[in-house]
Amino acid sequence: METLRLYDFLPSGNCYKIRLLLTQLGVPFERIETNILQGETRTPEFLAKNPVGKVPVIEMDSAKYLTESNAILIYLSEGTEFLPYDRYLRAQVFQWLCFEQSIREPIASSRFWTSVLCKPSEYKQAIEQRREPGYAALKLIEDHLQNYNFFVGERYTIADIALFAYTHVANEGGFDLAKFSAIAAWIERVKQQAGYISITQEF
Amino acid sequence: METLRLYDFLPSGNCYKIRLLLTQLGVPFERIETNILQGETRTPEFLAKNPVGKVPVIEMDSAKYLTESNAILIYLSEGTEFLPYDRYLRAQVFQWLCFEQSIREPIASSRFWTSVLCKPSEYKQAIEQRREPGYAALKLIEDHLQNYNFFVGERYTIADIALFAYTHVANEGGFDLAKFSAIAAWIERVKQQAGYISITQEF
Repeated sequence: METLRLYDFLPSGNCYKIRLLLTQLGVPFERIETNILQGETRTPEFLAKNPVGKVPVIEMDSAKYLTESNAILIYLSEGTEFLPYDRYLRAQVFQWLCFEQSIREPIASSRFWTSVLCKPSEYKQAIEQRREPGYAALKLIEDHLQNYNFFVGERYTIADIALFAYTHVANEGGFDLAKFSAIAAWIERVKQQAGYISITQEF
Repeated sequence: METLRLYDFLPSGNCYKIRLLLTQLGVPFERIETNILQGETRTPEFLAKNPVGKVPVIEMDSAKYLTESNAILIYLSEGTEFLPYDRYLRAQVFQWLCFEQSIREPIASSRFWTSVLCKPSEYKQAIEQRREPGYAALKLIEDHLQNYNFFVGERYTIADIALFAYTHVANEGGFDLAKFSAIAAWIERVKQQAGYISITQEF
């Protein structure tokens, strides 16, 4: 196989999921920085790779592309310790990936406007509208982690990677994580995993 | 295995995905009608099954539950003709499931307010705000289907089931499907599949 290419944007939580898994898998990859703030996901060349106009995208040999962060996580983790072999445990991982996608927006958008665009005043109303659904999502995550060390099967899997990406930086969107003690403990457990890299680590 | 139970709401596209696949697989199941309009997904009993408070939920033997429509589709289709065995084709199915989840809201919500709650006037502004993202999603679907008969591998898979659920009733949310000829042809192909049932079919 040729070296895997990752069309990547460093501040993106969805891109970070893939960087983190690839690093933990020890799979070499070429990062192609794709600045969404400068329209680089909207060029004809990029839209030919992903008509939806979003990163991350991975490019494998023979110009084979794959998009959608959680689908890429599944693809890359099949047959590894990051995706359970047991059918019901694996299904629970898929369930948490869908859950993550369904609750991501309020937390990810608040962070984007506040700490990526750095325009919290301009987006004040939109951010305020996302407080309630964002905290409701964090409460569901907290409740689960009050009873379990990791999301599925008491092991670190791609469900943890997917949920970690935006949850651990929710404070960058103005969410107060101090009241979520189980989330805080889980964040520390994730950071202890072999091969962990931070979202801001340069390559 | 005990008979599989499906916590179901007949008008829901997400629930329809599961009814359709189970019927096409020939897997018997017990339907438990759960009326979301009457708060039946918000009772303590239901929240013990799914803390997120949403249908569909499947219950397998030993009180094992699984939630999130697209995760249930994957779980039920593994090892069947509805999910490709080839790793890259399977990854493309996951990609389209994530895509479906990301573009579902404008189309599903418009239909819910218009044809399930039957209060299009009350939700006029919210529906109008969803016109542009809804049509953008339909355009992406149309573009793909201009070149392919089905979403992945030129075969009917759970990617088609997931995308069919809300797309084929987008008109019930006020979207004009007349301009999408490839979608119309694909809808007819899906309806020709063995074991097809309509979203309104009573059990």
